[in-house]
Amino acid sequence: MLEDKNQQKTTLAELGEFGLIKHLTQYFKISQESTIKGIGDDCAVVFSEGKETLVTTDLLIEGVHFDLSYMPLKHLGYKAVMVNLSDVYAMNATAEQITVSIAVSNRFPLEALEELYAGIQLACETYNVDLIGGDTTSSTKGMLLSITAIGTAKKEDVVYRNTAKPTDLIVVSGDLGAAYLGLQVLEREKQVFQVDPQNQPDLENYTYLIERQLKPEARKDVAGVLAELNIKPTSMIDISDGLSSEIMHIATQSKVGCKIYEDKLPLDPQVISACEEFDIDSTMVALSGGEDYELLFTVPIADFDNIKGNPNFSIIGHITEENQGMNLVTRSGQEMELKAQGWSSFKED
Amino acid sequence: MLEDKNQQKTTLAELGEFGLIKHLTQYFKISQESTIKGIGDDCAVVFSEGKETLVTTDLLIEGVHFDLSYMPLKHLGYKAVMVNLSDVYAMNATAEQITVSIAVSNRFPLEALEELYAGIQLACETYNVDLIGGDTTSSTKGMLLSITAIGTAKKEDVVYRNTAKPTDLIVVSGDLGAAYLGLQVLEREKQVFQVDPQNQPDLENYTYLIERQLKPEARKDVAGVLAELNIKPTSMIDISDGLSSEIMHIATQSKVGCKIYEDKLPLDPQVISACEEFDIDSTMVALSGGEDYELLFTVPIADFDNIKGNPNFSIIGHITEENQGMNLVTRSGQEMELKAQGWSSFKED
Repeated sequence: MLEDKNQQKTTLAELGEFGLIKHLTQYFKISQESTIKGIGDDCAVVFSEGKETLVTTDLLIEGVHFDLSYMPLKHLGYKAVMVNLSDVYAMNATAEQITVSIAVSNRFPLEALEELYAGIQLACETYNVDLIGGDTTSSTKGMLLSITAIGTAKKEDVVYRNTAKPTDLIVVSGDLGAAYLGLQVLEREKQVFQVDPQNQPDLENYTYLIERQLKPEARKDVAGVLAELNIKPTSMIDISDGLSSEIMHIATQSKVGCKIYEDKLPLDPQVISACEEFDIDSTMVALSGGEDYELLFTVPIADFDNIKGNPNFSIIGHITEENQGMNLVTRSGQEMELKAQGWSSFKED
Repeated sequence: MLEDKNQQKTTLAELGEFGLIKHLTQYFKISQESTIKGIGDDCAVVFSEGKETLVTTDLLIEGVHFDLSYMPLKHLGYKAVMVNLSDVYAMNATAEQITVSIAVSNRFPLEALEELYAGIQLACETYNVDLIGGDTTSSTKGMLLSITAIGTAKKEDVVYRNTAKPTDLIVVSGDLGAAYLGLQVLEREKQVFQVDPQNQPDLENYTYLIERQLKPEARKDVAGVLAELNIKPTSMIDISDGLSSEIMHIATQSKVGCKIYEDKLPLDPQVISACEEFDIDSTMVALSGGEDYELLFTVPIADFDNIKGNPNFSIIGHITEENQGMNLVTRSGQEMELKAQGWSSFKED
């Protein structure tokens, strides 16, 4: 008999759907008191006495939302969880559970899914959430993930988008635009690689940008920092599609206007230098870049002294009356109407 | 100017993601008291005082789970909701909300998604659940749906899979195998159509089978019927992958055996005649057909008089000690080991 020298890869068909779920989730532990029943029944069961339950869901599709040629599967798993937890934190709530559904074509061996789930597990452990359910199936093309996150909050703590008031300060956590530029760097390296596979990329100047793209962190900490400052936001949203798109959601839903100051937008030095290199306007990147997963919120103007100078936050503008519109005040003092140029997966043929 | 005689089709890119969600969900109403916040924020918010929350999710992929050449989009939307509600009812719980995420390639015009959402809306209205969130994106190939259903139940009412006891009766609602045969009929007609597009199919003998495949109904009613009979199931599961696969889940998780009687399996007359026509064993179809979305449950033997003769239910066997295994007693009195041949989306290349 001839020896099979191919490295052994386990096909998904060998395991079947139930075997696959069991295999992939065997090292996940349930740690939340609110998780009554995790994987293994028709439904998962959760319970939090007297608290409201928050639910959010996101669909991530290979070739639309991610590119596996530079997104390692472990990072993809981690990021997919972050995207959803970010939505829970944007309600000023605690994320406690997720469900993960995946579909994969036969081109993925079991070992690829193990990598993906290692990232999901790292996210669950780091952010203290339980994996409580999901679905696993084959796809006709590529990989897709559908994640639902579940959180809880006391009724009086939940912060919506539609409750900003004129004179409220507009505040953002962290800095903006880095994830978008990280994507540009990775796309450029991909193209270089396609032309010259021997080329060794030097990514030292872009480490922060790439990390923000490949391994974003959801701002679980913001609720705690605000509570310590004794501040309750009047409205909040997470920045997934770009700052201007998000502030416009708050303004439209709250029936108010807003004024954002260009010189207040928080930019990392790597963002500034990469913008110069790519010849892109850094304000444009900060406003429309997307995938920052920072929190954008409004606070009463009375909290100004509480929040100014806090290293976690930047005050970038304030809420106005609705009839004043939504505007950007440029460095030169000019007012321009804000435009949402957030990312859209729907493009013309 | 020349007149454009093409029928106007709206492309999804024209609307964008937010416009699309708004358009598709504009006629959906919130009717559940437990829905605090529906579509329009980072998360949906639900609250049910003192009740446990149940969560289930399913992924449906074109070319794997459904074939649009014979599945009308409105039916697909309806069925996708049923698949999830069925899991909530299988916990003896009340379904109250769903989230719907869809991804579609550019081949689908807006009008196709309107059809899909009309089916989802009909399901929501008929089953009294609120659409509270989701995600809408483009896909690189075909259509996929990811639905999450949320339900509630009092802690003491929730019925799990792992609590069946020896001597319990095994009961199934409705009848089995019709949805599988409906699929066979539709597949056959599809092939006839490919050979001879002029052929007019005569489907009169298969109306029940086709309806069970294209427009299944989740058994919302079973909880009420059982409550009226003063019966609380000791374990329950819904039949999506086929009876034998499901009873094996109950038996394995409850650490018991089971005995199913072939002559007790409930079969519709159309199932019997179609099995003859297709030359398939009707027992095999009942055991492994799948997509029945009936409920399979166990009740204490003391409830025998309560449940026997009830037109909603068939007693098909009983739970045994674990060491007796999982068996089918044939019409001739022979015992055969049950095998799960439920549907799997993972197949060898």
